Amino acid sequence: MDPDLAFEVWSGERQQRIENVLAGALSLHAGIPVPLIDAMRHAVLDGGKRMRPLLAYAAGELAGADPVVVDAPAAALEMMHAYSLVHDDMPCMDNDVLRRGKPTVHVQFGEAMALLAGDALQARAFEVLGAAPLRDAGAACALLAASAGGAGMAGGQAIDLENVGVSMPLTALETMHRMKTGALIRGAVLLGAACGRPLAPAEDAALDRFARAAGLAFQIVDDVLDTEGSAAVLGKTAGKDAANNKPTYVTLLGLPEAKRRAAAVHADAVAALEPFGTGARRLREIADWITRRSH
Amino acid sequence: MDPDLAFEVWSGERQQRIENVLAGALSLHAGIPVPLIDAMRHAVLDGGKRMRPLLAYAAGELAGADPVVVDAPAAALEMMHAYSLVHDDMPCMDNDVLRRGKPTVHVQFGEAMALLAGDALQARAFEVLGAAPLRDAGAACALLAASAGGAGMAGGQAIDLENVGVSMPLTALETMHRMKTGALIRGAVLLGAACGRPLAPAEDAALDRFARAAGLAFQIVDDVLDTEGSAAVLGKTAGKDAANNKPTYVTLLGLPEAKRRAAAVHADAVAALEPFGTGARRLREIADWITRRSH
Repeated sequence: MDPDLAFEVWSGERQQRIENVLAGALSLHAGIPVPLIDAMRHAVLDGGKRMRPLLAYAAGELAGADPVVVDAPAAALEMMHAYSLVHDDMPCMDNDVLRRGKPTVHVQFGEAMALLAGDALQARAFEVLGAAPLRDAGAACALLAASAGGAGMAGGQAIDLENVGVSMPLTALETMHRMKTGALIRGAVLLGAACGRPLAPAEDAALDRFARAAGLAFQIVDDVLDTEGSAAVLGKTAGKDAANNKPTYVTLLGLPEAKRRAAAVHADAVAALEPFGTGARRLREIADWITRRSH
Repeated sequence: MDPDLAFEVWSGERQQRIENVLAGALSLHAGIPVPLIDAMRHAVLDGGKRMRPLLAYAAGELAGADPVVVDAPAAALEMMHAYSLVHDDMPCMDNDVLRRGKPTVHVQFGEAMALLAGDALQARAFEVLGAAPLRDAGAACALLAASAGGAGMAGGQAIDLENVGVSMPLTALETMHRMKTGALIRGAVLLGAACGRPLAPAEDAALDRFARAAGLAFQIVDDVLDTEGSAAVLGKTAGKDAANNKPTYVTLLGLPEAKRRAAAVHADAVAALEPFGTGARRLREIADWITRRSH
């Protein structure tokens, strides 16, 4: 890839690329019955920032991977993320009706089909990743599963559930977010890097530090946006965490301190990339984008 | 293993073995928050026939695999099966309150936690399988995912949903069951065999034929038991398919013809094993057990 491309051009190309990969992975001819495949496509295609795929492509570039090799992990990551949104939006969870500017899956297809669509998207993620031409596709599956499972994303959701309306110390809030959103973001960076040359232990550690900081920055900014944003810009219901009486960085720290904290964590993410020099350009740009985004 | 062991002894040993493996895979110290891990353990431990693990161990024996190598696939299969039961029992699906003689997960832990427990069990299955010391753990994950996903188990559930109260031709019923229960049973046989020596193409085909027939026999017998059984024996609500107005082999064929069909499919399963001689003893015994079981 041309290293001189502006980030907007690079990310736009990668977003188009992953859209095509996802459409192929969720083909109408994959043997999946209608309306299940329709619900899965509704959840995944034509929407979303594709942050996790972008992180995977950027980390792959850092490790010298051909984007073709990153395609399957990137698609698996996005399907995993999409499944979590489908289930999170269901009436027994956040009961949300709007997502990425469209009706949520259970609104459009019914609760039972939404449940199955989420389940099938998780399975499809592992089907695609397990069959990918990686050095160790089994290890990649184990990493994705650990990121998304009970000690990762799903575990963070469970902590979230248990703490609605409960006052939560900052360390507990950070643990929750490290699991709920941070783990899959970290998984995206590490899976992308695993598509390229093996990294030295110090490089692995630096990348891990970047991934953790980027995930935390994302979550703090998310909380800020949930407070300041409107549904029109966010493409989802705004203010829902406050309405649901959930602890957030903003409710715990106040808006100005939450913003200061986001900036500090962003700085840490960027500092972690220093050893990689220009090879980390895209990861650095994604960290900037995460922190400056408006939705 | 001693080939002279009676099936009851062999299967009892394997059931105890998988119970220990599952308890280890769902340890309270796995970093999964309470009550999520409690809900996952409730769904998996101390219950169930462990048919899929038994099939995996039996197919592994046929291919000369050490049971130690089959442990991880067997546990992954059972966690996958258990997750599907948790989600299937939820109010938006079958709304069932009793499973394996215990309250269902959503009754005990609430709907949201049941949703997450199912999600986390699916992830845990791939985490365990992806890290297993197999020839190709990535391919194993892809096979398990295909068995459980939109073109397999979850897809069969979706067809089931769409056909409540609808008259369904026998071929459509068979397609539904081939996906809903048959695919994961087939996956159990093939994953177990993949733990041993590579099989010749003709052996693979024979094993596949066995797996498909065994899965079909299981489902027909399940329908018969749902008609004839009581909750006390089944450990779950009896007659629920008829009550839910779902098509079954019994409603389509009548009880006597459904029983005849189960016997014919069982005979086909046994015939498929002929090329393997005594090496297929345990698979043959499981096919007998599937057909003769009372719950």
